Amino acid sequence: MLKSPITCRSISILALFKFKKTSENGRVARAKVLTIDTMNPTVKNAKYAVRGPIVARAAELERELNEGMKKPFDEVIKANIGDAHAMGQQPITFFRQALAICSYPELLNDSTFPEDAKSRAYRILQSCGGNSMGSYSASQGIDSVRQDVARYIERRDGGVPSDPDNIFLTTGACDGIMTMLKLLVCGEGPTRTGIMIPIPHYPMYSATLVELAAVQVNYYLNEEKCWSVDISELKRALDEARHYCNPRALCIVNPGNPTSQVETRQCIEDVIRFAAKERLFLMADEVYQDNVYGHGCRFHSFKTVLFEMGPEYSNTMELVSFHSTSKGYMGECGFRGGYMEVINMDDEVKAELTKLLSVRLCSPVPGQALVDLVFNPPQPGEPSYDNFIKERTAILSALEEKAKLTEQVLNTVPGISCNPVQGAMFCFPRITIPEKAMIEEQGQQPDVFYCMKMLEEAGICVIPGSGFGQKEGTYHFRMTILPPIDKLQILLNKVKEFHQKFTQKYS
Amino acid sequence: MLKSPITCRSISILALFKFKKTSENGRVARAKVLTIDTMNPTVKNAKYAVRGPIVARAAELERELNEGMKKPFDEVIKANIGDAHAMGQQPITFFRQALAICSYPELLNDSTFPEDAKSRAYRILQSCGGNSMGSYSASQGIDSVRQDVARYIERRDGGVPSDPDNIFLTTGACDGIMTMLKLLVCGEGPTRTGIMIPIPHYPMYSATLVELAAVQVNYYLNEEKCWSVDISELKRALDEARHYCNPRALCIVNPGNPTSQVETRQCIEDVIRFAAKERLFLMADEVYQDNVYGHGCRFHSFKTVLFEMGPEYSNTMELVSFHSTSKGYMGECGFRGGYMEVINMDDEVKAELTKLLSVRLCSPVPGQALVDLVFNPPQPGEPSYDNFIKERTAILSALEEKAKLTEQVLNTVPGISCNPVQGAMFCFPRITIPEKAMIEEQGQQPDVFYCMKMLEEAGICVIPGSGFGQKEGTYHFRMTILPPIDKLQILLNKVKEFHQKFTQKYS
Repeated sequence: MLKSPITCRSISILALFKFKKTSENGRVARAKVLTIDTMNPTVKNAKYAVRGPIVARAAELERELNEGMKKPFDEVIKANIGDAHAMGQQPITFFRQALAICSYPELLNDSTFPEDAKSRAYRILQSCGGNSMGSYSASQGIDSVRQDVARYIERRDGGVPSDPDNIFLTTGACDGIMTMLKLLVCGEGPTRTGIMIPIPHYPMYSATLVELAAVQVNYYLNEEKCWSVDISELKRALDEARHYCNPRALCIVNPGNPTSQVETRQCIEDVIRFAAKERLFLMADEVYQDNVYGHGCRFHSFKTVLFEMGPEYSNTMELVSFHSTSKGYMGECGFRGGYMEVINMDDEVKAELTKLLSVRLCSPVPGQALVDLVFNPPQPGEPSYDNFIKERTAILSALEEKAKLTEQVLNTVPGISCNPVQGAMFCFPRITIPEKAMIEEQGQQPDVFYCMKMLEEAGICVIPGSGFGQKEGTYHFRMTILPPIDKLQILLNKVKEFHQKFTQKYS
Repeated sequence: MLKSPITCRSISILALFKFKKTSENGRVARAKVLTIDTMNPTVKNAKYAVRGPIVARAAELERELNEGMKKPFDEVIKANIGDAHAMGQQPITFFRQALAICSYPELLNDSTFPEDAKSRAYRILQSCGGNSMGSYSASQGIDSVRQDVARYIERRDGGVPSDPDNIFLTTGACDGIMTMLKLLVCGEGPTRTGIMIPIPHYPMYSATLVELAAVQVNYYLNEEKCWSVDISELKRALDEARHYCNPRALCIVNPGNPTSQVETRQCIEDVIRFAAKERLFLMADEVYQDNVYGHGCRFHSFKTVLFEMGPEYSNTMELVSFHSTSKGYMGECGFRGGYMEVINMDDEVKAELTKLLSVRLCSPVPGQALVDLVFNPPQPGEPSYDNFIKERTAILSALEEKAKLTEQVLNTVPGISCNPVQGAMFCFPRITIPEKAMIEEQGQQPDVFYCMKMLEEAGICVIPGSGFGQKEGTYHFRMTILPPIDKLQILLNKVKEFHQKFTQKYS
């Protein structure tokens, strides 16, 4: 990336110079219409560390290694993102067989494909215009897919009814979350919409809020209690925020990212009571609902708890829950499949939501097909059932093992302390950074300095805690637990070694 | 959709009533947090007729027909949207074979699949993390796909160089257009960014501008000159707009939607000169570049013309061009594949663009794979070449025939006049609506009234011109030319018959 050596952008004489500088052929060159000074400031102000400068440097290092440059490591391990297949996880055979048939329906006649993959693909194709995944779907998503999702939710929630009309298929969960946030934002100055988000948090939330010029209202997760949500902290955050904005929604990520906590049923009930009392719209990011490993932990959907609390809550509380095909055991990030279920949403708002989605026409149909397969997988007695269960179990058991290994190894390192990885795909250990390192880092955040060193010295790419937010004076990093177990072991040992050296050097 | 019978939303006592109304169990029900009155007003104000009330009514009529209700027609013909596969167009075999292999790489071992489909799929998979379409790609898109797109552009533009670093893969073209518009918008009041768009226009533009609170600056296409762009009209629109906003970008859609014109090389050169002189960022929506049928018409990319105009232009003019896999001969709308090429974009802005895309992680990988296949299709000598050419030619020839048939039939109807369908997939005929009909329509726009009647009486779903914008006092509708030729013939005869009856009734 070329950068102008002149960084002081506010001096207007420089702008004038920029405008008048001559091009090669001696004519006066036109100044650019769109520059960093004249672009949308909300876009410029948004931050997104998960794909920020450390990740860019990691890609550079990979290129340098490929070109034969000597480094203190043989390979860059990208532990910065929850990208299961990139880490070597194999796709679930059934899903890919059915998707291949949907892509090339001639395969319906191929005797090597199992009948259940064929029947699922056939049903999906029947629901597509012209029986082709190449047609646009309805903006809300294919009808039969939304029906299958609703039935899945009913099974998951022990029979609590789910209406396909409340299901909206999305381009990954992010798209749904961004769309909902966009609907919620209004007002100016002290009446501007505030959105409560956890700290630490997945930075798509803060980046979107900056883009929407909404007010980010931080509530801190309790690191001492395994990153759980604390109602008194919610109350503190809300009361303070009411002085400068209009807080209208509360986002909960369960299981947590980057913090991997799994909230208890009691906690969820308390959050619902709080949101009801304080008139907050509830946004439950539940994309890691299949990723639960912690001892005694269980996933409780916000919707089930809401319905168990009786009609006072279930008839009135506005809730939207997000899910995705990118996480869980399938890890199909590239297909950008997802859905959201809206509960008690005002009918006129629902119509506006549909309109908003319709401007983008529809979410990708292969992603919608995958949503259908994931939420309507092989059933007992069907030909793919045994293999499906085998593959799914292997992936989830390995994840559980990796979660435990990560916690265990990191906690053997003096200066690193790691909460149990109860769920999701990440650990978020707290690190002690020596005073001297803080002096040396020269304007970088200390944890950015730490992670950049880890990348340069050990070839490990993790994301500094400051990219997710953390309590002042505390430092963390986020690392995925996704590499295969032998590689994860190497990775953890390298982290250990790096941390020890780093501490020694700056002590 | 349930609607409250009370429509006067501004009376606060009603809001109070709403808040205090009791629920079934006698308790005080909570008012909703998110209502039509408290949602994001920019979302509410956006309009998108292509999927609006007429299309909703068409879906309803289809359901009613299926339930056995009697109608004056046997089927609803949805001629409202450019959705080729939904109209029965078959996918290109080669693309779907390669996509099936990408989905289920076991098919690399299947001897019934042609070698070129295998080699393309293999190359795509090699560029995916973990060799799986289930991985996230880089936010800008898969490297090798961007390389193939750049090479395609070079071939198309007679050797004008294209840099893969300037290619950004997008979720359909809309996503690219929305992203670019988002980058461009800044300022407040009279310095707010204005964006020049054609009238009539594809309403994604206006809906996005409303969402972004940007100022829509209309320039009218010249219906008398086959909907071409007129420089004096651009100048008029710009000069007027400068009194109330800061016009920064000019959007050109070539071939046009809904107006189907193909701009001449001279016109494009004039537009570039105009944009250069007036310091406007150029946005060229060229998604219909393969859809050119008009006698003597040829597609000229803005980029080629820019480079032919010499370094004074090619070294400085900021241009972005959009393309898609949804149109052309492939019509793969559901995959949401697309790209944009940015020319002379400021490097810092390019970095911000990448960051903005990265918050959404990446565009769908199956769509990216399709982009690769479309822009790197079978070559002479490869096993799929002959069949590919045969399929492509058949589709494009049929479209040409349909374009001519449409123009010809519609122009036989007194009160309908239709410009030649030079390109794209639509006709946009002008219709005469009798005075009496205008009295009867009771608050609806006359062309909405006309199209709704056409739907109810003839079962034909088209979009009223007011959804695209039109000169005051003129009325049009947009109809796709995509149905198979025999069905199109029926459709056109029904339109003819309907128009005659309608004119008779209201004369």
